[in-house]
Amino acid sequence: MQWAPTGLRARRGDSVITRLMAEQLAHPEMLSLAAGFTDNAVLPAALVQEACARLAADPSNAWLQYGMNRGRHGLRRAAAELLRGYPGEQELPLDADHVLVTNGSQQALYILVQLFCEPGDIVLVQRPSYFVFLELLQGLGVRALSLPGDAAGQLDRAGLEPFVEELRASGELGRVRLVYLMGAYANPSSGCLSGDDKRALARALRRLDPPVPVLEDMAYRELYFDAPWPARSLLAMEEWRDFPVVYLGTFTKPFATGLKVGFMASRERAIVKAVAKVKGHHDFGTAHFTQAILEHVLETGLYPAHLAGIRAHYRDKCRHLEQALRDHGLGAAGWQWESPLGGLLLWARGPGGTDTRLGSAFHRACLEREILYVPGDLCFAEGAPYHCARLSFGALAADRIAEAARRFCAAAYSAANP
Amino acid sequence: MQWAPTGLRARRGDSVITRLMAEQLAHPEMLSLAAGFTDNAVLPAALVQEACARLAADPSNAWLQYGMNRGRHGLRRAAAELLRGYPGEQELPLDADHVLVTNGSQQALYILVQLFCEPGDIVLVQRPSYFVFLELLQGLGVRALSLPGDAAGQLDRAGLEPFVEELRASGELGRVRLVYLMGAYANPSSGCLSGDDKRALARALRRLDPPVPVLEDMAYRELYFDAPWPARSLLAMEEWRDFPVVYLGTFTKPFATGLKVGFMASRERAIVKAVAKVKGHHDFGTAHFTQAILEHVLETGLYPAHLAGIRAHYRDKCRHLEQALRDHGLGAAGWQWESPLGGLLLWARGPGGTDTRLGSAFHRACLEREILYVPGDLCFAEGAPYHCARLSFGALAADRIAEAARRFCAAAYSAANP
Repeated sequence: MQWAPTGLRARRGDSVITRLMAEQLAHPEMLSLAAGFTDNAVLPAALVQEACARLAADPSNAWLQYGMNRGRHGLRRAAAELLRGYPGEQELPLDADHVLVTNGSQQALYILVQLFCEPGDIVLVQRPSYFVFLELLQGLGVRALSLPGDAAGQLDRAGLEPFVEELRASGELGRVRLVYLMGAYANPSSGCLSGDDKRALARALRRLDPPVPVLEDMAYRELYFDAPWPARSLLAMEEWRDFPVVYLGTFTKPFATGLKVGFMASRERAIVKAVAKVKGHHDFGTAHFTQAILEHVLETGLYPAHLAGIRAHYRDKCRHLEQALRDHGLGAAGWQWESPLGGLLLWARGPGGTDTRLGSAFHRACLEREILYVPGDLCFAEGAPYHCARLSFGALAADRIAEAARRFCAAAYSAANP
Repeated sequence: MQWAPTGLRARRGDSVITRLMAEQLAHPEMLSLAAGFTDNAVLPAALVQEACARLAADPSNAWLQYGMNRGRHGLRRAAAELLRGYPGEQELPLDADHVLVTNGSQQALYILVQLFCEPGDIVLVQRPSYFVFLELLQGLGVRALSLPGDAAGQLDRAGLEPFVEELRASGELGRVRLVYLMGAYANPSSGCLSGDDKRALARALRRLDPPVPVLEDMAYRELYFDAPWPARSLLAMEEWRDFPVVYLGTFTKPFATGLKVGFMASRERAIVKAVAKVKGHHDFGTAHFTQAILEHVLETGLYPAHLAGIRAHYRDKCRHLEQALRDHGLGAAGWQWESPLGGLLLWARGPGGTDTRLGSAFHRACLEREILYVPGDLCFAEGAPYHCARLSFGALAADRIAEAARRFCAAAYSAANP
C-alpha cells in the first residue's frame, strides 16, 4: 500500500544531521569535516570500563533497573557542583532539584521548545546558530529569527535595541517566546558571548513583558583550549536574575558521545518540573545505566584529568587544521576564520562570490575529492549568506586532518577557477 | 521571580508514572504493587558485564561514539529476526531498514502520535489501556476514545461495527487518526487479543478511508509464562495488509530496564523514515553504548536462555501473588481477576461499590498499611469504572509479595467494612 504522512507538526523540515551522520558512518573513506563527532582516540574507554566493572560489583543490580524520570540524584548533584566550579560562579544556589538529566542536551532543547512555544511563535537565535536547533524549530512549526550580528558570529550590540523596537513596531514582539544562545564556542562559529554582550542582551530583552525565557546552551563550554571562557553563565549574572534562564550542559561532547547524557539546570524549579512532566511522556527517564556510569566517573574525581587531556588534544588538532589550511593557500585565496579558543569547529568564510551551498560547484568539487563539510547557509534562520563553511576537527585523526585540509583547499581553488 | 508556563501543548496532564516511580524509589519501605519495575533479582548483570568487557576490547572505541539516528544496523537486523522467530511469522519481509531503535518503546509511541495526529484528533484505544499512553495523548492535546470492551479488558467484537457506525453518525470518524493496541499481556489487564479479535478489528476499521495507522505495542510479548500467545502480530496477518501497521517492541522489560532500548518495525519504510526525521530532532539517536551491549548479547545467542529464566521467575511470582490474594480472602470478598498468561501485571476488580481512586477510603487504607497500587480508573480513556486496581508482581521479591497481598487484602476488608 501507499502511505503518506497525514498531518503532523513534527514532520516538517529535513534532518540534515541525520544525513550527515549517516554519510559519515556509511562512507568511512570520505574525509569528513562535517559531522560533529568527537575523536574516538580520546574517548574514555578505560574510565567507562572501570565504571562498568564497579557497578557490576553491586549485587543489588539497581544500576540495571529503571531510575527516576529526572535522573539520578547523585548525577544531578554532581552537575550542579560542576557549574559552581567555574570562576565567579561558586555562589550559584543550585542543588540536585534544579537539575534534570536528558538524552543529550538535544532532548532538553526539544522539550523546552514544546514547553514555551506554540506553532507560529518566535524564537530569537544567534546569527549563525546551531542548525539542528533551527531544524527542530521548523519541525515544531516555530519560527526562528536572528538577533543582529555578522556572518562571523559576532553579536551587534548596538543593533539590539533597534531590533527589539522594530519587532514592537511590526507587532511581532508579543510572539517572541524564547531566546536561544550559545555562550561559549558556539556551533557553528565557535564564537563566545562576552560579559558586555550578555549585559547588552539583558538590557534589550528587558523590554519584553513578561520576561522571555532564555536558554543558554553550553554544550562546548568544557572544551576550552587553554582557559575557561571568562564571561559568567547567564545563570550567575545579576542582570539576568529576572529572566527565566535555563542552562543546558552535557557529558556527551566532553566525555562520551556514545553515552548520550546531558542535563538542564535552572533556578526556576517550576521549569524543571514542567520539563520533567513532558519527559515523563517522551521516555520517563534517560537510561539509568549510562547515568550510573557517569555518576561513578564524577565521584572518582577522574573527570577533570580526562578533560585536561582532551582539551590539549582538540587544541592541537585545531591548530593543525588551521596550519594546514594556511599551508594549502586558503588564507591567501581570501578565506577568513577566527582562531577558535575551544570547541570542535572552525567557521570559515570565503571571499566574495563564494557559494558553498548543497549542489553548488564548490560542494560538487568537495564531493569529487571525497571531502565533507557543513554548508554555512544551513546555520542561519534567515538571510543566509552563501560563503561560509563549518569545518569540524573533532572526528578526524590528526594525520587525516592535513589531507582533509588539502582537499578542501583544492576544491576551493577549483570552484573559484572553473 | 515567578514563572508560570506560558503556552504549550505538551504540558497538559499530570504524570502519574513519574509520581509512581518517584514514590517507589523514595520509599523503599513501602511495598509497591504499583510501578511496573522488573525484578532486580533477574536483571542480566553478568551478561551486561560480559558485553561491556567485550566492547572495551575493541580498540576503535566506536562503541563509545555517536551512532546512526536509526540505531545500530546489527541491532535492527537482530530485532527483525526476533520478530520472525514467532510461530507463523517466519515469512515477515522485514530487514534492518524496517526497524528503528528508540529510547524504550515509549519514545516510539510519542513520536508516532506526533507524526499521525494533530490536536483534537482521536486515537482509538483499548478499554482499559496503558495509562502513560493516555497521558501522553492528553499532553499532546489528542483525544483518546475507547473501543468497546468490558472492564476486564475483553474486546466486545460484536460492538465494533456499531461503534464505527456511531462515530460516522456523530461526524467524528474523520478525526480518527490512529489506533493503539496491546496484543499480548496488555497493560493493565494482561489480556491478549485473539486472532478473532484482530480479524474483527480489521473488518470494522476497514470502513475508514484512508486506512487508519495501527500501533501494536508488544512490550510484554516476550514475557509469556508457558508458551507464546498464539495469535500472530498484526504485521503478519493478511487481514491487516492494507493498514499502515507499526509494531512496537522493546529490550527494556524483557532484558534490562536500565538500558532503555526499544524499537519500532513496519513494512512501510515511509513511516520508519518519518519517525527517523522526528527522532533526529528529539535526540538524533539512542545511546550507542547501550545498543552495542544489546547487539552483543543478541549475537552471542544467550538471549533466549535469559528469557527462559525470567519467564519461569515471573510466572512463579504471579502464581504466588494470586495464591496469597486468595489465602487472605480477596476472592471470598468478591474480588475477581483473570489469571495472567504472561506479563508483569494482575488486574483485580472489586465487588459493587468498591472505589479504588486516589484519595478514596480504599486508597487511604492502603497508604496506612504502606502498600501501593495503581488505581484502575487512571487506565480508562473515558467512562472509567472505579472498582479496579493494577497490581504488579514485577519488582517485589517473592517473600515480599505475600506480605504485600496480605496488606492489600486487609485494606480491602477495612474499606469495605468501615
